[in-house]
Amino acid sequence: MIQLTVLYGQPQDPAAFDRYYREVHAPLAKKLSGLKGYTSNKPTSLNQQEPSPYYLIDTLYFENREALQAIFQSPEGQAVAADLPNVATGGATVVVGEIEVYDPVALS
Amino acid sequence: MIQLTVLYGQPQDPAAFDRYYREVHAPLAKKLSGLKGYTSNKPTSLNQQEPSPYYLIDTLYFENREALQAIFQSPEGQAVAADLPNVATGGATVVVGEIEVYDPVALS
Repeated sequence: MIQLTVLYGQPQDPAAFDRYYREVHAPLAKKLSGLKGYTSNKPTSLNQQEPSPYYLIDTLYFENREALQAIFQSPEGQAVAADLPNVATGGATVVVGEIEVYDPVALS
Repeated sequence: MIQLTVLYGQPQDPAAFDRYYREVHAPLAKKLSGLKGYTSNKPTSLNQQEPSPYYLIDTLYFENREALQAIFQSPEGQAVAADLPNVATGGATVVVGEIEVYDPVALS
């Protein structure tokens, strides 16, 4: 299983970010077929004494690297990738790696 | 569902990081009871043209905030938290947020 993590930096206008994410970016992402999963969370720092460096974390799951490549070579995948700079007004860090699962997770 | 994300910065000595993580830190984390899940991945940048800012990403899942607090107030939780600086020789960013699930994920 492959995990793709999108770490969105703090936007200057959180309300505008939320609106664009909800109305444009998430609907594009939901068109991706073949995803194993897609979650999103707006984090705070654990100690809450300092701000989170990230406004939003998206986590996408793929069966394997071939599935990831196929999805991002599809028109829907290219649309999501092309839209990332539009939503990520505070920047975004995108990393991808093979998951080692220590405990089964069932988010359904 | 609560997602706790631990983003480990690049260590100066990856082999030492791996050894300590495998032999000390992960076993401590596996002693936590009440976790909904625990995954780990060593990411690369998506485009692979620049290095990943993070060496390892741990993702822990909790039923809710109360469960997270209870776990980290337990002796096992305090042991994991106290050990974090020992393993995270390249620093660590720890953030926590409520998950919105767009697609069910079954990693089991």
